[in-house]
Amino acid sequence: MTPHLDQLIDMALAEDIGTGDITTDYLVPCHNQGHGIIVAKEDIVIAGLDIAKTVFQRLDPKVRLQSAYVDGAEIGCGDTVLVLEGSLRALLTAERPALNFLQHLSGIATHVRTYVNALKHRRVRLVDTRKTTPGWRVLEKYAVRMGGAHNHRMGLFDGILIKDNHIAACGGIRLAVASARKQISHLIKIEVEVSDLAGVHEALESGADVIMLDNMDIAHIREAVSVIQRRAVVEVSGGITLKHLAELAETGVDLISVGALTHSARAVDLSMRIQ
Amino acid sequence: MTPHLDQLIDMALAEDIGTGDITTDYLVPCHNQGHGIIVAKEDIVIAGLDIAKTVFQRLDPKVRLQSAYVDGAEIGCGDTVLVLEGSLRALLTAERPALNFLQHLSGIATHVRTYVNALKHRRVRLVDTRKTTPGWRVLEKYAVRMGGAHNHRMGLFDGILIKDNHIAACGGIRLAVASARKQISHLIKIEVEVSDLAGVHEALESGADVIMLDNMDIAHIREAVSVIQRRAVVEVSGGITLKHLAELAETGVDLISVGALTHSARAVDLSMRIQ
Amino acid sequence: MTPHLDQLIDMALAEDIGTGDITTDYLVPCHNQGHGIIVAKEDIVIAGLDIAKTVFQRLDPKVRLQSAYVDGAEIGCGDTVLVLEGSLRALLTAERPALNFLQHLSGIATHVRTYVNALKHRRVRLVDTRKTTPGWRVLEKYAVRMGGAHNHRMGLFDGILIKDNHIAACGGIRLAVASARKQISHLIKIEVEVSDLAGVHEALESGADVIMLDNMDIAHIREAVSVIQRRAVVEVSGGITLKHLAELAETGVDLISVGALTHSARAVDLSMRIQ
Amino acid sequence: MTPHLDQLIDMALAEDIGTGDITTDYLVPCHNQGHGIIVAKEDIVIAGLDIAKTVFQRLDPKVRLQSAYVDGAEIGCGDTVLVLEGSLRALLTAERPALNFLQHLSGIATHVRTYVNALKHRRVRLVDTRKTTPGWRVLEKYAVRMGGAHNHRMGLFDGILIKDNHIAACGGIRLAVASARKQISHLIKIEVEVSDLAGVHEALESGADVIMLDNMDIAHIREAVSVIQRRAVVEVSGGITLKHLAELAETGVDLISVGALTHSARAVDLSMRIQ
Amino acid sequence: MTPHLDQLIDMALAEDIGTGDITTDYLVPCHNQGHGIIVAKEDIVIAGLDIAKTVFQRLDPKVRLQSAYVDGAEIGCGDTVLVLEGSLRALLTAERPALNFLQHLSGIATHVRTYVNALKHRRVRLVDTRKTTPGWRVLEKYAVRMGGAHNHRMGLFDGILIKDNHIAACGGIRLAVASARKQISHLIKIEVEVSDLAGVHEALESGADVIMLDNMDIAHIREAVSVIQRRAVVEVSGGITLKHLAELAETGVDLISVGALTHSARAVDLSMRIQ
Amino acid sequence: MTPHLDQLIDMALAEDIGTGDITTDYLVPCHNQGHGIIVAKEDIVIAGLDIAKTVFQRLDPKVRLQSAYVDGAEIGCGDTVLVLEGSLRALLTAERPALNFLQHLSGIATHVRTYVNALKHRRVRLVDTRKTTPGWRVLEKYAVRMGGAHNHRMGLFDGILIKDNHIAACGGIRLAVASARKQISHLIKIEVEVSDLAGVHEALESGADVIMLDNMDIAHIREAVSVIQRRAVVEVSGGITLKHLAELAETGVDLISVGALTHSARAVDLSMRIQ
Repeated sequence: MTPHLDQLIDMALAEDIGTGDITTDYLVPCHNQGHGIIVAKEDIVIAGLDIAKTVFQRLDPKVRLQSAYVDGAEIGCGDTVLVLEGSLRALLTAERPALNFLQHLSGIATHVRTYVNALKHRRVRLVDTRKTTPGWRVLEKYAVRMGGAHNHRMGLFDGILIKDNHIAACGGIRLAVASARKQISHLIKIEVEVSDLAGVHEALESGADVIMLDNMDIAHIREAVSVIQRRAVVEVSGGITLKHLAELAETGVDLISVGALTHSARAVDLSMRIQ
Repeated sequence: MTPHLDQLIDMALAEDIGTGDITTDYLVPCHNQGHGIIVAKEDIVIAGLDIAKTVFQRLDPKVRLQSAYVDGAEIGCGDTVLVLEGSLRALLTAERPALNFLQHLSGIATHVRTYVNALKHRRVRLVDTRKTTPGWRVLEKYAVRMGGAHNHRMGLFDGILIKDNHIAACGGIRLAVASARKQISHLIKIEVEVSDLAGVHEALESGADVIMLDNMDIAHIREAVSVIQRRAVVEVSGGITLKHLAELAETGVDLISVGALTHSARAVDLSMRIQ
Repeated sequence: MTPHLDQLIDMALAEDIGTGDITTDYLVPCHNQGHGIIVAKEDIVIAGLDIAKTVFQRLDPKVRLQSAYVDGAEIGCGDTVLVLEGSLRALLTAERPALNFLQHLSGIATHVRTYVNALKHRRVRLVDTRKTTPGWRVLEKYAVRMGGAHNHRMGLFDGILIKDNHIAACGGIRLAVASARKQISHLIKIEVEVSDLAGVHEALESGADVIMLDNMDIAHIREAVSVIQRRAVVEVSGGITLKHLAELAETGVDLISVGALTHSARAVDLSMRIQ
Repeated sequence: MTPHLDQLIDMALAEDIGTGDITTDYLVPCHNQGHGIIVAKEDIVIAGLDIAKTVFQRLDPKVRLQSAYVDGAEIGCGDTVLVLEGSLRALLTAERPALNFLQHLSGIATHVRTYVNALKHRRVRLVDTRKTTPGWRVLEKYAVRMGGAHNHRMGLFDGILIKDNHIAACGGIRLAVASARKQISHLIKIEVEVSDLAGVHEALESGADVIMLDNMDIAHIREAVSVIQRRAVVEVSGGITLKHLAELAETGVDLISVGALTHSARAVDLSMRIQ
Repeated sequence: MTPHLDQLIDMALAEDIGTGDITTDYLVPCHNQGHGIIVAKEDIVIAGLDIAKTVFQRLDPKVRLQSAYVDGAEIGCGDTVLVLEGSLRALLTAERPALNFLQHLSGIATHVRTYVNALKHRRVRLVDTRKTTPGWRVLEKYAVRMGGAHNHRMGLFDGILIKDNHIAACGGIRLAVASARKQISHLIKIEVEVSDLAGVHEALESGADVIMLDNMDIAHIREAVSVIQRRAVVEVSGGITLKHLAELAETGVDLISVGALTHSARAVDLSMRIQ
Repeated sequence: MTPHLDQLIDMALAEDIGTGDITTDYLVPCHNQGHGIIVAKEDIVIAGLDIAKTVFQRLDPKVRLQSAYVDGAEIGCGDTVLVLEGSLRALLTAERPALNFLQHLSGIATHVRTYVNALKHRRVRLVDTRKTTPGWRVLEKYAVRMGGAHNHRMGLFDGILIKDNHIAACGGIRLAVASARKQISHLIKIEVEVSDLAGVHEALESGADVIMLDNMDIAHIREAVSVIQRRAVVEVSGGITLKHLAELAETGVDLISVGALTHSARAVDLSMRIQ
């Protein structure tokens, strides 16, 4: 029931196989069986094991797959990620689409883990953003969790985040927050994005549940935290890289959101070997 | 008529908007008009302009968009990529999905351009692989062309590429090539992947149209090229990075294929401002 | 961009027209033009005007439709809801599907308005439930708003509502709330359903944002409200009918949720006349 | 192979679960098993048992469901409708969508049964109309049969029903019937809607197979029946309520069609208990 | 609103264009305009003109198409069927899919017309069967009407046709007809297939509306017609070819059904010329 | 994973069953089991056995089907093609859609085999064209292979075929071939269509891989072959019928393409008997 997952698997197989895997169909007899392994070619955090299984079994439900790991596990370079057995044609034809899923999601989980490790033992929550690959929102946010971070809202529907254009359209933070409060479900909170201390004060007085400090420097972030005094949850956002994390965490903010978690992770290196 | 493009746009909007952009719907009156620009926050090669337009117009067909550029153009940091005008709600709600397309595809084009520049004025052809994000094959290969490189086959259906497992199933390169030749369309060529000089000789004698040297070192590549003597097209593949490109090009190979062109490009930084 | 709306319109037309409206296709020349009105046959609150327009225009984009009303308006018996002009075939063939949408949604809006009127001038918020017609969730919740009430959460994804089975699986309210708090987005609140005062105390101590009093009698509801003392939002739910509303509102609860708003509204009576 | 059923189940699950049942996913361990029952909270005629089973099994094919009843059976208040066993997560997450199907269809079957009982032992046939919830035509007409009544035509494609606008476009009943007869399949009959005795005479002379008396009073209906003398099938329609049924049946008409069978049935009350 | 037409057009374009019309995209500049004609290379009855237009306009809505004919018209060898003007790329890429629709449907219409001409001025009705190309039922039955014949039922849903296996399952024709009559809509007739005179008598006594004489010889058909004496409609079916038509018509039967109308028509020859 | 096959099966069942197989549903009890055979009523080459099985099992996965043949086998008149066993309702309802697939594909395979037999023992390759039934491209090309011939390109995406309009747009064959060569994948060949010897010379000099002689007479074909001298593959095309095949083969051409293989095959005669 993961939204878009079935569609993405269909698309992955259709775009790669098209009118037929002519190499395999012409050269590999249809009853040949094969036995293979997928191996990590570098140290990774794995994500997408069940998806990879589904891709192979979409071609032949009788392919058997086993893994010693679950999503979120760290796997060393050279270790076996998955053991596969079944129709050789299915293994060869589904290899690339299955690896493409696994390499992309594990790439994000592995990337996220480096951020998480940099924050270890600190109270602050590392969260992702909506900067995800179109079609992949729910899957990439799943990979973020497997990497050890948290999710910000899933989309525009499960959280209020009032930015400058919304504020301008309403005539001020106070009016915007009041108007949202009147209409939203009683289970949704209101976050307001501000870029200076005046904004912090106004958001606080308007009763915002969460205040996002956008692209503010460390000094101003510290000041904002001391002004807010836990009367609202504090998020920092904007241009944050691995090396700023520890310093940011020390400011006492509650959340650090980082777009690069999803939009700039490279694929990890995995390969399949038939034995 | 780009395969999967409409589906990806639908998915991008559905996963982000879901049951409604509650912030915008609650705070921005539905008749407000807006005027905005999308700006490059770093030097980029643009790709996906028409797609970004389509995303905005899917929400409101009356949104007007203009650009001084076409896909493939280099745009400097700070320059305006697109000018937008129309329903403020449509601009705000479609902003993130539209930017996600543009940032991802321009990220690939920009990344590819660095490789292309490293090869400038050389005869060798730089090509991509099938290591693409599931669902995005045709779009990412389009971005590769916008970056200035060429495409390898689109998928398993429009080219024969015989690898070790196919060879094993057939009982040798010669039998594999002969069997493929008998069955394929007269408009498709046959490529054979080899990993040593013995393989090069066998592929050559079997009449392969293209020989892929997989993970061979420079010395062996040079030797392979001198053995083949233009009787087959020569491709090198496997673990190639930017810094090897020039040296590889000097060996006289015809094609260099690089998975990183698509699977390891980070998104470029773009932002929308409403004015 | 309303989820499922396009699909429902497609289904409505497909299931009614099937392989063709044989009466109209055989008897009405394809160039005949018609002029019609849709009339209320009883006092109603209208909802679905734009959807009805879309249904007619799906058959012929040139059909023109006009209304003196917007959704949420009260329309008296005998008044004209919509004026239509265009291809007579399109008007006749789309009549029933279009009316079926309008009668169903206006039925809910009209029904809700009677509840809203019973609560007029009171602070309490009347909300719907997830007891909606499959496929119609977002549309029926829209009709609830047009009737003047508020929406509870849209589904299982945009709010936490902890019921007895969840509590049992976690080993108590406190553990359940703590576990949810650790995992949810910082923009989502936690509601706990309780059925007695012990539950109220436990929910309060666990830090629940909202407490739902399920099927409690008036005396216990009053007591719960005085225990809670605005430290959590209070919702009452379960078997509530029109006649209890005023008394319930007097108890000081914040929300009253009523399944009958959506699951037991009858269609209102509308008819189309060609002139 | 029921048209639209799979689509409605997909929509029901998608609109409720969306990006995830966060309460259940966060609080119920994924291997917990559960055992539950669905109980009738009032006297009902059940319809939709197989659909409810399908909804649960869509989430987990291993959920087992058993019922002592088949669709169309009367079930007393407090009796167990279905016994369920399987993944606790699947039971909790699918509960509401499954109940929404069952409550809606059983609501129609229960409502129809009261009409059928009012006509017991009479020759007349009670039939439904095309006033159904968009997307639900085939399912609601199935519930009508489970309630004990018959179906009128399924849609515009499997029967000719000539109304005043068709007659006007053709220049009279006679021309309309002749024109339809010339074109329709030899397996389809022609029904003509009339509102007075002149219409009855004209329809009869034109060779209509069925004559619908629309909104005529009892005296005129009696007269029409005696005029027609079984030379055509006679249907009465328009504003018919439960209390008129017996009197109408006495007039000797063949069919009574009632829109309220489908468009004004309230959902019956069912609830699931985990044990 | 023709069922499956949009889907077939999508499939036709997708299966032909796939990942791109590489010849046209590489060789024809995207702004080139073209002017072309589609010409009949033999005498034909045209069917599918609007579909062909839709196919071209799916690639470019600005392509203009004009024809001097409407579906059902006879067009001589060498005559211009359609004049086209617009994007040269769209004309070249859509040529084959558009012609494939036009050649297939016109092939059926042309084939049917030869049968219709053989029956000219006779009262008997020539009808098709359910032997159609999967996915094409409604379109091929449309082409049959354009050829001048009538349609039998559209499918299994809009007519009762009782064959030997149904009869065996019910225990005889009489029980089968009675059982069907009790359940079917009052707008649907009952046809019974018989293969000898005993069957004719039984069908007649059971009250069948239509009797199908299956694979009976001329003498028995004549006898059956004289037995039935217009108390039921009479259809003959089975192995009928063009040369039997006139003789069969003389027997006095009402309908002649011929599977070959749809399942054995060859495509007519049309070609497009760019000028 | 055959493109469009699932869709076509869905369409075939939907268009035939629609809102229900009323004859079978009303007359055959749902638990009745049946046993049947599908018999060839003429000599055929079978194609589509697995598809026919899938159609029956789509209605009831428990239907068992067995055949003594595989696709491509010759089956004599009167021989049993398939043995079926299972739900009688499923057998009766799926009979026609399943036969329609089998009759259409076997019709093509049977037709192709007559051409193949006429060429037996000759080196020339018989190939199909893109003149296929929309939606059926991959299936009809499969039937061509089962008949014993080869496939030309699958569509516009897996081969370059330069025709006169492309040549005109480029300013000559040489420029067209050079431009294509620069852009196409290194695994795709270039074919050029010419209609006279001047064209042959120009194509040869431009480096075309394949030259198509379009509608040229035997004498010119012979001359072209002797000019080309195996420097390019030679295809003949245009208006070729069964009787020309042998003579054409003698000219030394490599490929003969025939549109009639797919667009003018009649369905073969098969029938199902329940026992």
